[in-house]
Amino acid sequence: MKKSEFSFIGDIASMFGALPHNGFEPIGDDCTVVDMGEDALVMTTDMLLEDVHFLRGASSAEEVGRKSLMVNLSDVAAMGAKPVATLLSIALTESAQGEWAEGFMRGYYEASREAGVALVGGDTTASRDKVAINVVAIGRAPKGCIKRRSAAKVGDIIAVTGKLGASSKGLVDIMFGDMDTPAARHHRIAQARIAEGEWLGRRKEVGAMMDISDGIASDIKHIMELSKVGAEIELKAIPTDYDIRYATTGGEDYELLLTVAEEKFESLSEEFFTATGTRLTAIGRITDTGELRWTEEGNPSEIELKGFTHF
Amino acid sequence: MKKSEFSFIGDIASMFGALPHNGFEPIGDDCTVVDMGEDALVMTTDMLLEDVHFLRGASSAEEVGRKSLMVNLSDVAAMGAKPVATLLSIALTESAQGEWAEGFMRGYYEASREAGVALVGGDTTASRDKVAINVVAIGRAPKGCIKRRSAAKVGDIIAVTGKLGASSKGLVDIMFGDMDTPAARHHRIAQARIAEGEWLGRRKEVGAMMDISDGIASDIKHIMELSKVGAEIELKAIPTDYDIRYATTGGEDYELLLTVAEEKFESLSEEFFTATGTRLTAIGRITDTGELRWTEEGNPSEIELKGFTHF
Repeated sequence: MKKSEFSFIGDIASMFGALPHNGFEPIGDDCTVVDMGEDALVMTTDMLLEDVHFLRGASSAEEVGRKSLMVNLSDVAAMGAKPVATLLSIALTESAQGEWAEGFMRGYYEASREAGVALVGGDTTASRDKVAINVVAIGRAPKGCIKRRSAAKVGDIIAVTGKLGASSKGLVDIMFGDMDTPAARHHRIAQARIAEGEWLGRRKEVGAMMDISDGIASDIKHIMELSKVGAEIELKAIPTDYDIRYATTGGEDYELLLTVAEEKFESLSEEFFTATGTRLTAIGRITDTGELRWTEEGNPSEIELKGFTHF
Repeated sequence: MKKSEFSFIGDIASMFGALPHNGFEPIGDDCTVVDMGEDALVMTTDMLLEDVHFLRGASSAEEVGRKSLMVNLSDVAAMGAKPVATLLSIALTESAQGEWAEGFMRGYYEASREAGVALVGGDTTASRDKVAINVVAIGRAPKGCIKRRSAAKVGDIIAVTGKLGASSKGLVDIMFGDMDTPAARHHRIAQARIAEGEWLGRRKEVGAMMDISDGIASDIKHIMELSKVGAEIELKAIPTDYDIRYATTGGEDYELLLTVAEEKFESLSEEFFTATGTRLTAIGRITDTGELRWTEEGNPSEIELKGFTHF
C-alpha cells in the first residue's frame, strides 16, 4: 500500500484503541495474544494476492500454498509459540480452479503436515481477476513464554537465526529469469523457524523477538519503537552469503530477530545450535540512544540502508 | 465457486482430517471451537471480493465495512457465543485508497462499536484490480453454551428469528436500480443477531443452531446432514413480507435457524421476545426420514425450491 500503509494502520490502531479489548492485546506485535489461563493463544493473519505477493508464472501452485502458510507460521514462531491451527480463505479465478487449486492445497497440506498444524476453518469463493488468499495462524504457549517486541533492554545482544539475504537475492535472480539458483530456490521454498521460535520462547534470557519479513534495517525499528530503545548493528557480523544490502534491507527471510541478555548469549547460542541445528549470531547491541546506528568493524558506517518495498 | 465449491471443500476437509486437531473441532459448523477451560473460543472467517460479494457502485464504502464485519459476527452468534474480537485483512486498489478506505473503516468501526468487539490484528496490502477483504471473528462462551449443527433431535421444533426474504428481495430491487426500497435498505445495512445468538446459547432447550446465509432450503440441509435427521417445513408458517421464494431460497438474511425441544418452545419464544424484542417462529419439525419435505397447510407442497447461488 505504498507509503500510506503505515499511516493507515496507525489511524486504524488509534481509532479502535478506544473500544474494549475483551482480553486481547492490542495491535503491535507479530500476533495478538489472548489469555487462556495457564496458556495463551496467539493469532495472526496475512493476505497474499496474485501479482502483488506472487506470480503464477514464477512460482508453482504448491510453492504458493506452502508460502501462504509459512509466512503466517513465522509470525507465530516469532512470539515463542507453537503453531497449532490455521484458517484458510481462498478466492479462485476461473483459470485457477481445478489443477492450480489442487496444487495449492497440496503445498498447503504438506507444509501443514510438516509443522503439525490443523486446518480448522476457512472460506472458498470465486474471484473475477486475481487469486486472493488469506491465512490465519493460531499458536499456543505457556503465558510466560510469549515474546514481545517491547521486551528489549539496553545492553542486550541483538541476534539473528540462520543467514540473511538469500530470499531477496533469489527474487532478483527470478526477475532475471534465473529460476533455479540456490537463492531462487530459497525464495520459492519458504521455511519458517518453527522449532527455533518455540525453543527460544521457553528461554527467559530472550527478551524481544520478531520475524524478519522486511529486512533487519526496517524490522529492528519496530523493536526500538515498542521497547523505547536504540540499536547498534555491526555490518561485518551479519551472517550472509550475499551483498550486505540483501542481508539488511531484503525481505522475506523469515529468520528470527531477537534480543538476549548479554551474559547469557554464549551459552544460549551453543544450546540452541545443539537443540535445533540452527546458528544464532550476535549482530549488535541494544542502546539507550533511541537511534539505529550501523558500524563496520566498530566504526560508524557511511552506508545508507532503506527498508525493502514489496512492490 | 459454482458447483465445484462443495466438492473442493469436502476434499479439503477429508485431506486434513488425518492431521492432528490440536484441541480444535474440525470443519463443519459456522465456527471452529477451541477449549479454554471453563470457556471456549469460537472462530470463523469470510472473504468478500469486489464484484463478487459487493459492487462499489451499489453499496457505500461504509455499508461494505459494516457488512464485512456483520456476516462474520452472525457466524459467531449462530454458535451461541458472544463476539469479542476480529482480525481484518484488506487489499486496496489505487482507486480505493483514501476516501473509500476511510469510509470502509468508518463502517467497520461503527459496527464494531455497536457489537462491542475489538480489532486485534490484520493486514493491509495493495491489490491490482479489485478490493479484497477478509475478516476473522472470534467469540467466547461458557463451553456448555456452544450450539452445533449436529444437535438436532427427532421431534424438535424448527424455528427462525425475525422475518426472512428481505435481503434477497432487496438485492433484486437494487439490480433494478431501486436502491431505496425497505428491502434494499435491509440488504445494504447488514445486521447480525448478536444478542439473540448469545441469549439462545444459554438455553438448554435449544439444540442445533446456525445462521441463514444461503436460505433455509439450503441451510437446513447442513443441520440434517450433521444431525442425521430429516425435516418438514410448513411454507405458510415462514415469517416473511415477500414472495416465498425469497424467504426460502434467498440469501444473506442473517437470521438464526434453530431447533428447540417441542414442549419448551412456547415458553422459550415468549421469554426470548421479552428479552430481545425479536420474534421466534416455529416453521417445522425435525423428522426421522432423512429427507427435507415442504408442506402447505399440512399437505405436501409441489413447490420446487433450490438454494440461492451467489453469482
